[in-house]
Amino acid sequence: MTMDTTLYFITDSTGYEKEEFLNRVEAALRGGVTLVQLREKERTTREYLELAREVHKLTKKYNVPLIIDDRLDVALAAGVEGVHLGQSDLPVDIARKILGKDWIIGATAKTVEQATEAYQQGADYLGVGAIYPTTTKVKTILTSTETLAQICKAVPIPVNAIGGLNKERLDVLEGIPIAGVCAVSAIMKAPDPEIAARELMDAAKKILKK
Amino acid sequence: MTMDTTLYFITDSTGYEKEEFLNRVEAALRGGVTLVQLREKERTTREYLELAREVHKLTKKYNVPLIIDDRLDVALAAGVEGVHLGQSDLPVDIARKILGKDWIIGATAKTVEQATEAYQQGADYLGVGAIYPTTTKVKTILTSTETLAQICKAVPIPVNAIGGLNKERLDVLEGIPIAGVCAVSAIMKAPDPEIAARELMDAAKKILKK
Repeated sequence: MTMDTTLYFITDSTGYEKEEFLNRVEAALRGGVTLVQLREKERTTREYLELAREVHKLTKKYNVPLIIDDRLDVALAAGVEGVHLGQSDLPVDIARKILGKDWIIGATAKTVEQATEAYQQGADYLGVGAIYPTTTKVKTILTSTETLAQICKAVPIPVNAIGGLNKERLDVLEGIPIAGVCAVSAIMKAPDPEIAARELMDAAKKILKK
Repeated sequence: MTMDTTLYFITDSTGYEKEEFLNRVEAALRGGVTLVQLREKERTTREYLELAREVHKLTKKYNVPLIIDDRLDVALAAGVEGVHLGQSDLPVDIARKILGKDWIIGATAKTVEQATEAYQQGADYLGVGAIYPTTTKVKTILTSTETLAQICKAVPIPVNAIGGLNKERLDVLEGIPIAGVCAVSAIMKAPDPEIAARELMDAAKKILKK
């Protein structure tokens, strides 16, 4: 499965029954998201694993890699394609040592220093933000588009913009050599996640071409 | 490092500064605990890993294996000796597949059925309880000493009693072929964890001999 970060969909199951959640994830996949991250903070390990297996059935059907947020144990147990590591999660180099070279390892970076470190430790891609304030992570620190541009220059791996992004808000990213955009709420909470994903993909392609 | 579950100390860092917590863990080791489990529920993965490394320095000094509660990722990253899995954590068979045969894997069981399943899936020891109500896990279900005795008969691996145990309360375990006792508060919150561990060990040896 090839990693393509053009439209990276990060899930948020908060407030959804499992079936509704899975339906929304599949709708996003139909809409063309190129990468999916399962992000769960409140579940037990067993629940996280069970949900990961269900989401993995969907992502495999669409040939899209599944990334697990934070939990390398859940990723290993579910046999998915990757993990995403924030600054409060396992260090990238340790995760790389445990997982080997075939796994996708992504990292969050808010500064050039963090980005360089994550790249040197073996990250395959970076999520950089928050570009806009986000309702998903209320206490997050914003990253300027200047820093985002500097990070793109500093590391040779794909850099994705993240944080409060939707199809009306991508203009600020024009001209910055990002590899793609990340979206949570813009897809997850849309009336129709399939349409939302498709429209966001169109908007992303426009700014990524320039 | 040989696994000896005679006096299995399960930590609880709640309410302690890190230095005080580590001092108490080392006091327990000086007092003769034979196995240590680090159990953290509120920390980030990075914090859990950092604490695991510090506790591991202590347990290695006393040649006592360190078991990590729930988090196989933290256990792998810290390079400790084992993991302990409850019914809400990873299934034992999956953990065994990931870790291989050299790791210690413990499991919690409250019924003969759970005990048999954990043994068949590859658990090295069982923690069975709660024998008494416990302040550490307020919502826990009690296990009778009859069930404890049945579990000891049903599985050939070491079975430890857990839950509200202290040196005055071990009498109810007499005659049951347990391998050892687990203690959290009786050691952790004792005025002197070293003395508490030593006294609990003496009390445990008395009932384990019979």
